[in-house]
Amino acid sequence: MAKDKKQPRPKAVTPKGFRDYFGAEVIQRAEMLSKIAEVYRRYGFDALETSAVETVEALGKFLPDVDRPNEGVFAWEEDGDWLALRYDMTAPLARVAAQYRNDLPSPYRRYTMGPVWRNEKPGPGRFRQFYQCDADTVGAASVAADAEICAMLADTLEAVGIERGDYVIRVNNRKVLNGVMEVAGLAGDDKEEERGIVLRAIDKLDRLGVEGVRALLGEGRKDESGDFTKGAGLSDAQVETVMRFAGAHDHIVSVMSDVELSAKDYAVSWNGNVIQYLADKVIGNSQVGIEGVKELQEIANLLLRQGYDATRIKIDPSVVRGLGYYTGPVYEAELTFEIKDEKGRPRNFGSVAGGGRYDDLVKRFTGQPVPATGVSIGVDRLLAALRAKGRMSDTAQGPVIVTVMDRDRMADYQAMVAELRNAYVDPNDHSKGKIRAEVYLGNPKNFGNQLKYADKRQSPVAIIAGGDEFDKGVVQIKDLILGAEIAKNATLEEWKDRPSQYEVPRAQLLAKVREILDAL
Amino acid sequence: MAKDKKQPRPKAVTPKGFRDYFGAEVIQRAEMLSKIAEVYRRYGFDALETSAVETVEALGKFLPDVDRPNEGVFAWEEDGDWLALRYDMTAPLARVAAQYRNDLPSPYRRYTMGPVWRNEKPGPGRFRQFYQCDADTVGAASVAADAEICAMLADTLEAVGIERGDYVIRVNNRKVLNGVMEVAGLAGDDKEEERGIVLRAIDKLDRLGVEGVRALLGEGRKDESGDFTKGAGLSDAQVETVMRFAGAHDHIVSVMSDVELSAKDYAVSWNGNVIQYLADKVIGNSQVGIEGVKELQEIANLLLRQGYDATRIKIDPSVVRGLGYYTGPVYEAELTFEIKDEKGRPRNFGSVAGGGRYDDLVKRFTGQPVPATGVSIGVDRLLAALRAKGRMSDTAQGPVIVTVMDRDRMADYQAMVAELRNAYVDPNDHSKGKIRAEVYLGNPKNFGNQLKYADKRQSPVAIIAGGDEFDKGVVQIKDLILGAEIAKNATLEEWKDRPSQYEVPRAQLLAKVREILDAL
Repeated sequence: MAKDKKQPRPKAVTPKGFRDYFGAEVIQRAEMLSKIAEVYRRYGFDALETSAVETVEALGKFLPDVDRPNEGVFAWEEDGDWLALRYDMTAPLARVAAQYRNDLPSPYRRYTMGPVWRNEKPGPGRFRQFYQCDADTVGAASVAADAEICAMLADTLEAVGIERGDYVIRVNNRKVLNGVMEVAGLAGDDKEEERGIVLRAIDKLDRLGVEGVRALLGEGRKDESGDFTKGAGLSDAQVETVMRFAGAHDHIVSVMSDVELSAKDYAVSWNGNVIQYLADKVIGNSQVGIEGVKELQEIANLLLRQGYDATRIKIDPSVVRGLGYYTGPVYEAELTFEIKDEKGRPRNFGSVAGGGRYDDLVKRFTGQPVPATGVSIGVDRLLAALRAKGRMSDTAQGPVIVTVMDRDRMADYQAMVAELRNAYVDPNDHSKGKIRAEVYLGNPKNFGNQLKYADKRQSPVAIIAGGDEFDKGVVQIKDLILGAEIAKNATLEEWKDRPSQYEVPRAQLLAKVREILDAL
Repeated sequence: MAKDKKQPRPKAVTPKGFRDYFGAEVIQRAEMLSKIAEVYRRYGFDALETSAVETVEALGKFLPDVDRPNEGVFAWEEDGDWLALRYDMTAPLARVAAQYRNDLPSPYRRYTMGPVWRNEKPGPGRFRQFYQCDADTVGAASVAADAEICAMLADTLEAVGIERGDYVIRVNNRKVLNGVMEVAGLAGDDKEEERGIVLRAIDKLDRLGVEGVRALLGEGRKDESGDFTKGAGLSDAQVETVMRFAGAHDHIVSVMSDVELSAKDYAVSWNGNVIQYLADKVIGNSQVGIEGVKELQEIANLLLRQGYDATRIKIDPSVVRGLGYYTGPVYEAELTFEIKDEKGRPRNFGSVAGGGRYDDLVKRFTGQPVPATGVSIGVDRLLAALRAKGRMSDTAQGPVIVTVMDRDRMADYQAMVAELRNAYVDPNDHSKGKIRAEVYLGNPKNFGNQLKYADKRQSPVAIIAGGDEFDKGVVQIKDLILGAEIAKNATLEEWKDRPSQYEVPRAQLLAKVREILDAL
């Protein structure tokens, strides 16, 4: 009975908030990640790929309750244990650093690339599975580890195709921030809410400008729509303290613009000037602030000796970075070239990577504090940047299509593609490589469908050979890209007589196809 | 109160049945997959990466029940929907082929690589997350699509480093098998159990030999331990019919060994001989059997015209392949070189890939039958094979380590690694490349720990420079691999006076390091 009941057909849909990636999207990402991995490895970082599934206990933070466990993660119960998909790469690293602490070298430098999953409400451009690409150093207390990651980040951006001048790595230190809070009298446990508002306000400096941030530090701010955001309620003196810090970048810009400096001198002296200003005007006698400034000084020195001046890596006190767990240097890679936003207005591309020092993550497992610092690259953001700059190799081009005029000649067609695919590779001339090619394997009856297929595949060339051609020992070779151009410009005199199809002896198939591909 | 209650520390463990991959394991797999992708692309296959998460409805087969849903998959309920991690790459392909059927080219050739998850009892070498690497053609009814995948599989094995002669692609056809069942009178719906036993018995031919399989086809078989496996209970005539089929391979081997043939003639005539034998002696008048033999003939012809003879791709009627959903040609890549099993006995490496034609998977979604054929490579098996053959590049080598003798010279040490990392790359001489290098960033106090660290990292070279060296403008360069050799052979005269540490001017750091690395 039940067996005969007709099951409704399943719906063929990607689950809500998930997506599939096709062709060039997959290849371009893989190419970019492979270039990144090369730089990371050169810096001594080792690959790590943890399991996608973790125990909820090890992930931490998201402990299950009975009814609705694991807000924010995808989790399920398995024989009494709760398992979950990793939501980032840092929590699994902390687990690995604790689990293998007797076997791993210390310091342990590792990089990792792969998907993470977030059980969040999906939105436009916000997916529940996305790629992360992280590099972290576990077990190095020295800020040389932070400086190293900043240098590596600069090298990485250049390796994937972001030119020098189109990016800047901005560096700050949470300790300086904490020093400012001390000076402003916001250090106590009872001031957590105010500190939160202050941090968020500084983070909005770019968007709201100085006056907007001042308002948020004081009573509050009414935005264009009339909505009111409650401020931190600081006194004028407190606001001044915070603003001296947050406005340090702009202040130094204005001071330095009063002096005639070559671009090189400007770049070399920038970081020193910012640091001097922080020491003199911002952190007062705060011990933690003094320590933070000293660390920034050390980072700037190390980087300068390796050739990274402020045109590439810049001390910038307005960098806050959201995550609560940062304890020292924080850093952020910003792309400075303009793109058009959805309304066509120019704006800076913005942040593509960020990170900082966090010293307490491994402690959860072992009880021992372990210093660590690391960076995460926003894979999709960086890919979007490379596409905006036209820096992705064109992998969309389809294969050469050998059409099927005569079903019984299938072996002859297959021999043609085999010849193209196995073409001699000249190591000194990349154009002399194996050629991507396939036989049309759909129903060959309707030749128009075969050409439509070639069009959909973005094929550059179609090969045509029927009985006549086989009798004469020739093939027809159709330049599809030129053909499309000619069709587009059919009315223009200069295009009129250009051929886009060639008849060549079968023995010249490979040479002629190569000639057309090389000319693209 | 509750805040003060001490939480027990979480356990730092990978969930049961899952594992982490470190360093060379990650890189070697990525290198192998990248070579495979290159071949697949050359054959016109396009990349696809589906989401790791699917609706249980789309995955099918594993529908949830109330208590213990989704035996075999990891699944959970999300706002009333059941979601699950994919358990293979074929089910998501069927979903994609249905979902995007108006946008995808037809035929659609796609490859995909990534982890899949199985909710099974883990065992030795059996993990609940592992990689699959699949290539399928959807929408091509012609067996030219099957032949193409067999050729591609042969090219792929050679591209990753399996030499010709060390592998064979074995091809069979389910239709021939069905024909044999018809001839043996095992075609009816009521004979499903017998057919299952027959299939499993044929699949064991390698292991049990002819007599063992005969026993399983008849009354049953007692194994060495005395356990009895019930047989299919076939009559002697039925057993003969099946054995003519299953033994076809060995029969042709013996027939052909009676004739003097060159290796080339042997390879070229093999497939034809097998096919002739199947037609004459095995499938009788079964329509489906005749069709199956004709398809095998077509596949063999197509492949031979492309240069694939039976030394590479071989018709072999003993190939069964388990999955119920195959409907036509089935194929399997076997590595034929010997390895030692866990008891030190030599055995063939065995299967690393397999697949076949399945025509009903997309139909679940659309109601329309869509022909499809595809192959799945066992990524871990193939990696193990390449390691067994010594075909993996040695990526275990660690970075050059610049040790820290003087904390205050950190900028100098960083400048050294920057110089090594940014070394000039000569495009015509791979040895003139950028050098993997790092500064020791642990606590530098105990110099012995720094050398232990270099040892753990498998570093080839350590750089040493303290106050004396800086005063003299030199560095010490220690060849760690030679040093280890010398220590091992300390008693031998010829090793006694070999130095493994060199003092060179600072300006010659790069040149000397390069010299040592090039000599490795």
